[in-house]
Amino acid sequence: MRAVDIIRKKRDGQENTREEIQFLIQRHLDSVVPDYQIAAWLMAAFIRGLSDNEMSALTRAMVESGKTVQLPSMTLVKVDKHSTGGVGDKTSLVVAPIVAAAGVVVPMISGRALGHTGGTLDKLEAIPGFRTDLSLEEFQAALREYGLALIGQTAELNPADRRLYALRDATATVESIPLIVASIISKKAVEGIDALVLDVKTGYGAFIQEQGASRQLALRLINAAQEFGIRAAAVLSDMSQPLGNAVGNSLEVAEAVRTLQGKGPEDLVELSLEIAGLMLVLGGAAESHDAGKELARRKMETGVALEKFADLLFSQGSVADIRRLLDELPRSRHVYEYGSPREGYLAECRADQIGWASVALGAGRDRKEAKINAAAGIELLKKRGAPVREGDALALLHYDEAGALERALGFLPAAFEFSETPPPPRPLVQEILGC
Amino acid sequence: MRAVDIIRKKRDGQENTREEIQFLIQRHLDSVVPDYQIAAWLMAAFIRGLSDNEMSALTRAMVESGKTVQLPSMTLVKVDKHSTGGVGDKTSLVVAPIVAAAGVVVPMISGRALGHTGGTLDKLEAIPGFRTDLSLEEFQAALREYGLALIGQTAELNPADRRLYALRDATATVESIPLIVASIISKKAVEGIDALVLDVKTGYGAFIQEQGASRQLALRLINAAQEFGIRAAAVLSDMSQPLGNAVGNSLEVAEAVRTLQGKGPEDLVELSLEIAGLMLVLGGAAESHDAGKELARRKMETGVALEKFADLLFSQGSVADIRRLLDELPRSRHVYEYGSPREGYLAECRADQIGWASVALGAGRDRKEAKINAAAGIELLKKRGAPVREGDALALLHYDEAGALERALGFLPAAFEFSETPPPPRPLVQEILGC
Repeated sequence: MRAVDIIRKKRDGQENTREEIQFLIQRHLDSVVPDYQIAAWLMAAFIRGLSDNEMSALTRAMVESGKTVQLPSMTLVKVDKHSTGGVGDKTSLVVAPIVAAAGVVVPMISGRALGHTGGTLDKLEAIPGFRTDLSLEEFQAALREYGLALIGQTAELNPADRRLYALRDATATVESIPLIVASIISKKAVEGIDALVLDVKTGYGAFIQEQGASRQLALRLINAAQEFGIRAAAVLSDMSQPLGNAVGNSLEVAEAVRTLQGKGPEDLVELSLEIAGLMLVLGGAAESHDAGKELARRKMETGVALEKFADLLFSQGSVADIRRLLDELPRSRHVYEYGSPREGYLAECRADQIGWASVALGAGRDRKEAKINAAAGIELLKKRGAPVREGDALALLHYDEAGALERALGFLPAAFEFSETPPPPRPLVQEILGC
Repeated sequence: MRAVDIIRKKRDGQENTREEIQFLIQRHLDSVVPDYQIAAWLMAAFIRGLSDNEMSALTRAMVESGKTVQLPSMTLVKVDKHSTGGVGDKTSLVVAPIVAAAGVVVPMISGRALGHTGGTLDKLEAIPGFRTDLSLEEFQAALREYGLALIGQTAELNPADRRLYALRDATATVESIPLIVASIISKKAVEGIDALVLDVKTGYGAFIQEQGASRQLALRLINAAQEFGIRAAAVLSDMSQPLGNAVGNSLEVAEAVRTLQGKGPEDLVELSLEIAGLMLVLGGAAESHDAGKELARRKMETGVALEKFADLLFSQGSVADIRRLLDELPRSRHVYEYGSPREGYLAECRADQIGWASVALGAGRDRKEAKINAAAGIELLKKRGAPVREGDALALLHYDEAGALERALGFLPAAFEFSETPPPPRPLVQEILGC
């Protein structure tokens, strides 16, 4: 078997066999097949597409490239969630403690911010002392002890995904549905989970702009998960405007904590309960989605989810006291109030523009190497549908340097769109699949 | 400007600008843009194609990646030829001395055998002592002194082409018309030539199977050459069976020498005179193609071309005496006579199968690293159209080891096809373009 022949088949739109894909991925990790052959194959796969068989073979090859989380002594059901990425999406921070508080184990391996979208790891790292770099051993120990752990990718789990992702990022082969599905499902399969809830987002702040495409992606993800014995469901949700009011790492942690205190913004609460409800059903803690949502709401309102969040902080090295956490989170030196340029109704509050403005303030990364400013970000004071008068504060921009503010302000005129009459309602949760 | 954005445009079928292509090639040579980004771009270019503008920009970027042959003191016209590759094609060895003998300078930079096709460099290296690795200085000195020189690629000329070709070979992106055109014309443009004759081959032994496609390639090559101020013409020729009777390096040198002695096989003589005739017209030594062919024939029949060939040997380090060269060429230890399995007419004598059989004997390379056996090869005793009886010798196989013979014999049954009646004639020279 030769890599060049495998590449040629894909180039010509033929199907690669399982053995061929296994060969490419394994020999690449062994440094026998060089990066440039993988890059050529990825581009051919991007343009020609991958069949379900090829996608499944790729997923399995990635899973088998490293270790898998082993929790043989835990009989509790293990459930994770995955979002396709958005702006202001701190749902994981709310959902994980709720679900764990109901006795379902949540072994969550998350990613970092890239482009205009945020990343759970960067949010967690805004918490003083919080470690996201647990070893596989520490991760397993935390799960056994507290029933939840939130970490980043480790060297031992799925090394093939990290190598492939770095190549895809450099070769413009990221936005391929089968490559995305293989990456997501392989990362989840190595967590040793029993079930998975997918949050597939559509709109300005998501990488998909049409609900039909999101639905297709969700179905492929559900099918791919099931091939690995992972029961899966999906929420199709709107990401045309940021979720909640906070965008930026420290600001989002604070909003998640307030949500666990029962004081969260309506949309964040709604989506969190939908997702937590599904996780509880799949985790065997609730009979129906409605029952799951109700159980999740109780865990939130009674404060036990907040206690579980405190466990999480302790378990992963933060010395922050949950009661004083909101005061201990990093704060920016300056806050700028952005006023409405006109009167009317907010017809759009575009998540992509808000996301880029937030990156400009220092909250995200325009390049992989860029450093994050944990305190920087945007608080939205008005969201889609709100009536506004000229000069009304629309957002607070948290920043440290004037240059950052100036760059961020460049994005805001395009972020807010106005109308004379209230815009038609747009549901946050569009559809539930697979449950 | 970022490589990933340039790749993305090509991936989506958009046109890259001249600056973008220049950036990719130059930064790749500077080791700023890594191989894997070039590999992804090559695959996107392979599948999406390149416009004439992109192809021209790529050609120029490759030309500008290194030095150019400089012969400021030579006022004589400089003309080269290029063949798209075939089996038994020793035309360069015949044509170069003929044309140089008529006072037109021939600065020829050739390639090596790969796959089932032969390479001029490997043929020349069958001559004891012959050096194909002249430095740029030595190449220029040889041209000034003798009016011809035949060498391989040097480190100083067109380094980008060598790096790109190595990547294309490993990433299944070789067979792309625009990439092929850019590679050929950039290699020729750095020779500092005034004119170029292209031999574009069609048939089993060529990489193109349809004359229409060959015609398209020839026209793109002619146009691309003209952009660099190189006047160009093309011969479309048949490569369904090997050219001449000899296939294999030492055997082909011997056949070329016999041709220069006026004793060459009909088809090789015909194509050599066609090409030499065109080179003489473009070189200003003849008024018309017919006059050029006649001049070429005289140079061959009077022996002055053979004398020029002797100059070439001397100039490039061979101590072989042209009068005894045929005895001094390497010979294989064994010769096997392959008999006809049946009676009839030879309807096909497939160049691809003969080429692979010759590679199996040791005359070529199935991998770039493979070593050549200069003495190995095949002498065809019958060619297409010949009447044969069962058991008649069709070919002599020159080999050193039984294993090589056995592997070669595996290809021969598919090489020879038979018919009850004489096959319809098939012209060797199909069309002349651009002259």
